[in-house]
Amino acid sequence: MSALRQAFHELTLATRGRGLYEFTGQVAAWLAKNEFKNGLLTLHLRHTSASLLIQENADPDVRRDLEAFFERLVPDGDPLFVHTAEGEDDMPAHIRTALTAVNLGIPVRDGRLALGTWQGIYVWEHRRSSHTRQVAIHFVGE
Amino acid sequence: MSALRQAFHELTLATRGRGLYEFTGQVAAWLAKNEFKNGLLTLHLRHTSASLLIQENADPDVRRDLEAFFERLVPDGDPLFVHTAEGEDDMPAHIRTALTAVNLGIPVRDGRLALGTWQGIYVWEHRRSSHTRQVAIHFVGE
Amino acid sequence: MSALRQAFHELTLATRGRGLYEFTGQVAAWLAKNEFKNGLLTLHLRHTSASLLIQENADPDVRRDLEAFFERLVPDGDPLFVHTAEGEDDMPAHIRTALTAVNLGIPVRDGRLALGTWQGIYVWEHRRSSHTRQVAIHFVGE
Repeated sequence: MSALRQAFHELTLATRGRGLYEFTGQVAAWLAKNEFKNGLLTLHLRHTSASLLIQENADPDVRRDLEAFFERLVPDGDPLFVHTAEGEDDMPAHIRTALTAVNLGIPVRDGRLALGTWQGIYVWEHRRSSHTRQVAIHFVGE
Repeated sequence: MSALRQAFHELTLATRGRGLYEFTGQVAAWLAKNEFKNGLLTLHLRHTSASLLIQENADPDVRRDLEAFFERLVPDGDPLFVHTAEGEDDMPAHIRTALTAVNLGIPVRDGRLALGTWQGIYVWEHRRSSHTRQVAIHFVGE
Repeated sequence: MSALRQAFHELTLATRGRGLYEFTGQVAAWLAKNEFKNGLLTLHLRHTSASLLIQENADPDVRRDLEAFFERLVPDGDPLFVHTAEGEDDMPAHIRTALTAVNLGIPVRDGRLALGTWQGIYVWEHRRSSHTRQVAIHFVGE
């Protein structure tokens, strides 16, 4: 058994309004570049108005329907909200973040993320305007 | 301080339609068999239409009510959805997965999962038909 | 490369009815006391009627609106529920827990949690009465 090591990285992702942006390839490329074979990968999104999501990366209609459902569930400009100074999509963005997740833990085996066939890793942007989103990455393993 | 090690496992779970299937015992048995005492356990479900959930394992009505609430919140056959080719319960399954989680991280101390008295680990099947679900498991510790 | 180590801790938090209770400072203090510099922190809440949440810690209206939204989404005393013996806020508490999370994984770099500028770590109490909540903490790193 070889000794375990750890490593850190930070990805910067540009979003262009609401929607799901896949970055599975960028995570896989970082693992490959460092020759990490087996371990645990953790991703943490450093924001409160966007999420990390593992979802189907085959039919784009799935992402369209996810977005449509969340827009109906958490309506922009809902008169329930008091926190409106940053725009009518800001409080819905915080709620959508609470309903989903900002960190993920995924095993890595034989140099590959232990994702299912149809799983991709996404940043889900909940604001209407473009943003720069940062994902802190940690790996422990060998 | 002894050196940390890691280990991997994969559980295959058979589901029989919508509902919560507890597998806490299978996880605990794997820890015991390997004599893992202290560390971090990570579970990752390799699917996009089922979830991992930690919930009450006492009164079965809790699971019944969880299911009833999610069926009302994300109705099958909702005309909002475009992605319908795989059945009217498929897009609701993706949304229910987004609203919950597909990975969990749980500390292990003295050979036991650090779960609360009433917490059990479940696969939540969101499809109406039977499925085979795979959970990738990682342990780091000693 | 120095050898990795791990450590455990348990925080006990007192809640006083529904709402978000920040404990970022207590987590940071534990890291500092142990002089942990770089690694992965995992938090696990040992309950089924409260959540762990990373959310904005600037404007308190955000927490007020989160609470208002979830109270409307999962109404107390909903006639849909069968599990009512523990109070009309108990089943909503389980559902709110399912809609959010009970564990978090956060990288630690240079002795600091890799949180974004506005991110705080909260226990979200979903019951109306006061409770004592326990958070199991694990750190692996150096």
